[in-house]
Amino acid sequence: MINRLIEKIQKTGAPICVGLDPMLSYVPDFLQKKAFDMHGETLEGAAEAIWQFNKTIIDSVYDLIPAVKPQVAMYEQFGPAGLVAYRRTVSYSKEKGLVVIGDVKRGDIGSTSAAYADAHLGKVKVGSRTYSAFDEDFATVNPYLGTDGIEPFLKVCREENKGIFVLVKTSNPSSGEFQDRLIDGKPLYEHVAQKVNEWGEGTGNGLYTAVGAVVGATYPEVGRKMRAAMPNAFLLVPGYGAQGATAGDLKDYFDRDGLGAIINSSRGIICAYRKDEYAKYGAANFGEASRAATLDMIADLKKVI
Amino acid sequence: MINRLIEKIQKTGAPICVGLDPMLSYVPDFLQKKAFDMHGETLEGAAEAIWQFNKTIIDSVYDLIPAVKPQVAMYEQFGPAGLVAYRRTVSYSKEKGLVVIGDVKRGDIGSTSAAYADAHLGKVKVGSRTYSAFDEDFATVNPYLGTDGIEPFLKVCREENKGIFVLVKTSNPSSGEFQDRLIDGKPLYEHVAQKVNEWGEGTGNGLYTAVGAVVGATYPEVGRKMRAAMPNAFLLVPGYGAQGATAGDLKDYFDRDGLGAIINSSRGIICAYRKDEYAKYGAANFGEASRAATLDMIADLKKVI
Repeated sequence: MINRLIEKIQKTGAPICVGLDPMLSYVPDFLQKKAFDMHGETLEGAAEAIWQFNKTIIDSVYDLIPAVKPQVAMYEQFGPAGLVAYRRTVSYSKEKGLVVIGDVKRGDIGSTSAAYADAHLGKVKVGSRTYSAFDEDFATVNPYLGTDGIEPFLKVCREENKGIFVLVKTSNPSSGEFQDRLIDGKPLYEHVAQKVNEWGEGTGNGLYTAVGAVVGATYPEVGRKMRAAMPNAFLLVPGYGAQGATAGDLKDYFDRDGLGAIINSSRGIICAYRKDEYAKYGAANFGEASRAATLDMIADLKKVI
Repeated sequence: MINRLIEKIQKTGAPICVGLDPMLSYVPDFLQKKAFDMHGETLEGAAEAIWQFNKTIIDSVYDLIPAVKPQVAMYEQFGPAGLVAYRRTVSYSKEKGLVVIGDVKRGDIGSTSAAYADAHLGKVKVGSRTYSAFDEDFATVNPYLGTDGIEPFLKVCREENKGIFVLVKTSNPSSGEFQDRLIDGKPLYEHVAQKVNEWGEGTGNGLYTAVGAVVGATYPEVGRKMRAAMPNAFLLVPGYGAQGATAGDLKDYFDRDGLGAIINSSRGIICAYRKDEYAKYGAANFGEASRAATLDMIADLKKVI
C-alpha cells in the first residue's frame, strides 16, 4: 500500500492529503437543511449532512490528489450513524481511486490492539463468513503502550498489504510536554522514531516500509531531524494551513527525490469557501472553492520541493 | 460521578468492575446461532450475539458490583452495527444502576479531542436539538499528546459531572518500553502521574477528583508508588486474573480506607463458564458462571483490603 501511495503521489505531482474532518458547522446551511428534511434534526440527519458534504469535496478534488485522511472523531461524535458516514466516506474515496488514511490514533494492549487492527485495516470472522468493518488503507496509531500494542497492526499490514503511521511528534502546542522530554540525552520522540524503524523492518519492498510516522508541520527543525532519523519511514505531516505551518517550513520533510512525506490540510481545504480568497465561489459552490484551495496548496508546495 | 462510583463501591463492598470485552468466540454457540437465525452471519448478527451475551452477564452480576468497563475495540471490529451494541450495552448497564467506564483510550489534538469528549462523555448539537452519542460515565484517555489533548475532556467532565482515567502505567508486557524510561531520574509514567494531579485540580468535591489513572495490576511495586504519588486520583487497575495479577499484588493500590482503586477483570468473569472451576454451570448457564466468578473475585479481594 505504501508503494501505491507513492505511485499516486508521483502521478498527481501532489504530496498532499485532504483531511476530511467535517464539523457539522462546516456544512453549508442548504446542505444541512436538505439532510434534516430527510432525517430530521437527528444524529442520522447530521451524519447524512457530513456524508453529502464529503461526497461533494471528494468529487471536486479526487483527480488532483493521492489520498484523503478522514478523522474518525468527527464521525464518532454522531454515534453509530456517524460511523456509517465514516464508512461511506472511506468506501467512496476508494471507489474514486484515493488512498485512505484513517486518522484513528488507536492503541491498546495486544489482544485489544488486534481488534482495532481488524476493525480498521483487517477482517473479522462471523460464523463462516468474513467482513471488513471500516477497511481503510492506512491507520494512525498511538505508541504509548509499546511494541505489543503495535505488533497486531504489523501482522494485519503484512496480511492485507496495508500500512500505519505511528505518532512520533504531533503538531499541537503541548506535544512537547511528554514527547520532547529527554531520555538518555534524546527526546522521547526520537526513541519512538527508533522503534518506528524497528517495527518497519521487513514490512515493505521498496525504500519505504509499511510503518510511517506522524511528524507535525509546526516543528520544522524536528521534521528535518526525523527525515534523517527514519530513512525508511514515510512521514504524514499535519499542521499545514490552519495550524500555522507554511510551505517554507516543509522542505526538509521530503527526501532528495521530493518524496517521503505527505502533507495534510483539513480546514484549509474543506472550509475554503469561508475564506476571503475563495469567497467568490459562495457556499453553494463549496466544492469548487475546495478545488481551488487544493490547486493553490499544490502550487505552494511545488515552490519548495 | 467519581463520588457516585465511590458510593457504589461502598454499598456493594466490591471495588471491582467487570470488563465487557466480548470476542465473538466467547459467546456460547447457542447464543450465536440464535443471533445468526435473526440476522444471518452478518456484522449485525455478530453485534446481536455480543449484545445478548452482555445482557445476560449484566443481569447476572449487576447487584454485586459498582461498575462495568466495556472495551470499545471489541465492538468497533463489527463496524457501525458493533457500535450500536456498544451503545446498548452502555445504556442498559446504566439502567441497571451500574457506573460505566468506556475503555476507549482516545486522545488527539485539542479540537479533535473535543469531538471525542463530546462523543463519549458529552453532547453534540444537531440543528436546534442536542444528543449524546455514547454517554458513558467515564472514559479512558491516552496522554501522549499532552495537556491540550486532555483539556477538552476536563471541560466536558465539569459540565456533565463525568470523569476520565488517564493511561499512566499500562498492564501489558511492553508497557515499559516508553513508560519506564527515565526523565530527570524518574520514569515517564511518574511525569504523567504528576500531570494527572494537575489536570485533576478543581474537578472534584471530595478526596478524589474527576481525573483518575490507569495503573496495571501486573506491576505491584508501581501501584504502591502511584497510590502515593497521586493521592487524589482514583486508580483503574486492569490485569487481575487472565493477565496474571493476584489479590496479593493489589493491596497497596488501595488507600487506608480500602478505597482509591477499582480492579478490573474481563475474561476471568465473562468467560468463567469455560474454566474448569465453573464448568459445572455449562455454556447454557454462562451468566451463573460469571456470577460465581464475580463472588469469588470479591471474596479474593476481601482477603487483602
